[in-house]
Amino acid sequence: MYSHDTQIRVRYGETDQMGYLHHSNYPRYFEVARVECMRSLGFPYGELERSGILMPVLNMECKFLKPIYYDEMVVVRAIITQMPDARMKLAYKVYNSQANVACEGRTDLCFVDATTRKPMRCPAHIAHIMRAVFMP
Amino acid sequence: MYSHDTQIRVRYGETDQMGYLHHSNYPRYFEVARVECMRSLGFPYGELERSGILMPVLNMECKFLKPIYYDEMVVVRAIITQMPDARMKLAYKVYNSQANVACEGRTDLCFVDATTRKPMRCPAHIAHIMRAVFMP
Amino acid sequence: MYSHDTQIRVRYGETDQMGYLHHSNYPRYFEVARVECMRSLGFPYGELERSGILMPVLNMECKFLKPIYYDEMVVVRAIITQMPDARMKLAYKVYNSQANVACEGRTDLCFVDATTRKPMRCPAHIAHIMRAVFMP
Amino acid sequence: MYSHDTQIRVRYGETDQMGYLHHSNYPRYFEVARVECMRSLGFPYGELERSGILMPVLNMECKFLKPIYYDEMVVVRAIITQMPDARMKLAYKVYNSQANVACEGRTDLCFVDATTRKPMRCPAHIAHIMRAVFMP
Repeated sequence: MYSHDTQIRVRYGETDQMGYLHHSNYPRYFEVARVECMRSLGFPYGELERSGILMPVLNMECKFLKPIYYDEMVVVRAIITQMPDARMKLAYKVYNSQANVACEGRTDLCFVDATTRKPMRCPAHIAHIMRAVFMP
Repeated sequence: MYSHDTQIRVRYGETDQMGYLHHSNYPRYFEVARVECMRSLGFPYGELERSGILMPVLNMECKFLKPIYYDEMVVVRAIITQMPDARMKLAYKVYNSQANVACEGRTDLCFVDATTRKPMRCPAHIAHIMRAVFMP
Repeated sequence: MYSHDTQIRVRYGETDQMGYLHHSNYPRYFEVARVECMRSLGFPYGELERSGILMPVLNMECKFLKPIYYDEMVVVRAIITQMPDARMKLAYKVYNSQANVACEGRTDLCFVDATTRKPMRCPAHIAHIMRAVFMP
Repeated sequence: MYSHDTQIRVRYGETDQMGYLHHSNYPRYFEVARVECMRSLGFPYGELERSGILMPVLNMECKFLKPIYYDEMVVVRAIITQMPDARMKLAYKVYNSQANVACEGRTDLCFVDATTRKPMRCPAHIAHIMRAVFMP
């Protein structure tokens, strides 16, 4: 298990007329946190794409426990829950400004060759880094 | 079970640099389809809000089966899967322009008093309409 | 001058906690209306991109005259104001559900070769169509 | 003149299939920078709203000079260009990761009573702060 925390401040344009962070923004927050999590491990997602590998999202789940409000500084914890193989699985926890869990989520991603758009296994350099985390 | 189909054309600003409809837009498409589904049953969501009732999303799930592309005219089927009580449960299927299922989803919503922000039971007029569907 | 009207219904996720359509969505509505305007003339933007031509936005202006609300069915009029050359210039009017002008806008776009990312002149087939409009 | 710089990292979901930051996100970046600019002066926008004052955008302009790409860390400079009265006028410059100006923009905002939704003059405590900046 490897986790990384990212702070995100809720933007005005992300609220809705209920006065809450609109639920469609949580997958975007997960994405930001996932990208920072990967950067912290030494494989920024942007570099992966430049090397010809895409990581589309295969599925996602969110459980909304408490509303989040405009201008709150939330912490999004991205957790790589197991050694990646054909898929990379992450869980997320969004902590509101009172440090309560406001949302829990999960996503599965896969690795895709950008040219053929066919699935591929986890690239060697990522597997190498992740093995050091999961099987030290 | 009650279902309603809504056509949505993919906007350019909804694509990402992978060339796909970005996954964060699916919850927005579900929302559009849910709102049209409610309208087709005679209780538009806007009227519900004006009467002091909010319906926040409690959780959601999406399974992405095929990418969806810019300018595709997709059909989003919103399905009310059971008689609402404290919650209203919907399932969704997004059909791409070849009529293949590109995404399956689910959301649970609850009913909330807009003033107190406390959960409440399904309003009587909605329960009445839904009973005619589920227990005819 | 050539104009085309497109209906768009305001989505919940496009509102903000002021209860208005958030201003960042107007450029997206302009884009939807522009794309439908081009389709109505016989050169869908998607085909243009597939033929290797991109049309990025060079500048935009919006004047917000009246707020627009959730679930309103607005009409966005896209107006090609002059014969395109290196640029295509459009104006927009957004009519609210009472048929009042709620927003006026303008965008300039250019034509770009997708491979070289260099500007190019208006493609011949578009110029041909537009000449029939502007110099009949 | 008062200016404040805010760093924003481009999110994946903000790109489009052209591979650029989609132009509809610039108004959102301006908004983030404007809010941080106001916070730096001691009147966070969130507090203003809680005190019953809204600041809707009346108009905006953007000039896109260079594309901005995924994962770039841009700097958005928000500049209050004159002493606010009924309106607050800001200009913006977005610097890309090579410190080149990629976009220039302007917005005019007004002050609105949240209850009556009528325009009002710049609140006294903001005028006081801004006078110290503009007429020291």
